[in-house]
Amino acid sequence: MEEKETPPEELEQTVVLLGVSPSTKGYPHPSQSSTHALEWTLEKLIRKSCRKEFKLMILHVQVPDEDGIDEVDSIFATPSDFAEVAESDRKMSHRLLEFFTQKCHDAQVPCQAWIKVGDAKEVICKEVKRLKPDILILGSRGLGPLQRIFVGGVSDYCAKKAECPVLVIKRRPEDMPEDASED
Amino acid sequence: MEEKETPPEELEQTVVLLGVSPSTKGYPHPSQSSTHALEWTLEKLIRKSCRKEFKLMILHVQVPDEDGIDEVDSIFATPSDFAEVAESDRKMSHRLLEFFTQKCHDAQVPCQAWIKVGDAKEVICKEVKRLKPDILILGSRGLGPLQRIFVGGVSDYCAKKAECPVLVIKRRPEDMPEDASED
Repeated sequence: MEEKETPPEELEQTVVLLGVSPSTKGYPHPSQSSTHALEWTLEKLIRKSCRKEFKLMILHVQVPDEDGIDEVDSIFATPSDFAEVAESDRKMSHRLLEFFTQKCHDAQVPCQAWIKVGDAKEVICKEVKRLKPDILILGSRGLGPLQRIFVGGVSDYCAKKAECPVLVIKRRPEDMPEDASED
Repeated sequence: MEEKETPPEELEQTVVLLGVSPSTKGYPHPSQSSTHALEWTLEKLIRKSCRKEFKLMILHVQVPDEDGIDEVDSIFATPSDFAEVAESDRKMSHRLLEFFTQKCHDAQVPCQAWIKVGDAKEVICKEVKRLKPDILILGSRGLGPLQRIFVGGVSDYCAKKAECPVLVIKRRPEDMPEDASED
């Protein structure tokens, strides 16, 4: 008779919350920094022999456009155009999360993933407050101080404000694109 | 016959570098933030079933006094006074490290520990460059922006400059002393 394994729920797991973002090229491409952050987590943190002791949660915060509309000319847009755009955004966000959850699946690490809409840094801190993860992991482009002024780092903000330990994973120097603000 | 265990060296371990500091009360007391950072690491990161897949390294950077002397009146100090002070500092640093290594021993997590002298933030970044750990872990008092100006956070600096992923572990709100700059 096969020995019954302890269901993961019965262990006091380390809850890891990973925030992921799309590429600066746009949806549904994943950003290089989020991809690297997940790969690092699967390789270095959630080690093979202790997969069951971790719970991985993947959050994507979809940033609404300032006028709430993206691909449609806002002057001639009808309510149904808005609805279509919202639907298309939702699909794109789902495709982005599929990329990350597939990676977890391939590494045999179970995960949960969900989407929120709003300002990324504020939503992430709010979700930390709500879910109380043990650790928040964020990728970072690793920009210099001058570039930071213009780009405004989500990871910088969360490292200071989030109410849990925060791990910031910068891109490796060898992965850095010529224009470091690309991601 | 007992099965021979794989020596830890043969696994590709996750190398964790933890920077530790004394309390603001002075040597040899450990700071609250470093103590919490180590406890968190032993509980949440280096999980029981994968201890052998991690290698924990503990670094303490001893900050020299501006005049290179501590308890001795510098006007009347002789060269041997200086030597005694250096010897006493060294002993105090060792006692500090003993506290942290004992905690690891109690948790059955093997560790290495060593002391360097210099500016903490610069030495830590230099050691990251030299040792290439997978992750640098630092405790933080979790000060507000105004307090930061006067205290100058080692963790802030290293989070930006260190050439590896950096995990900053703030004190829990319930552990915060009345004067948050105490540690």
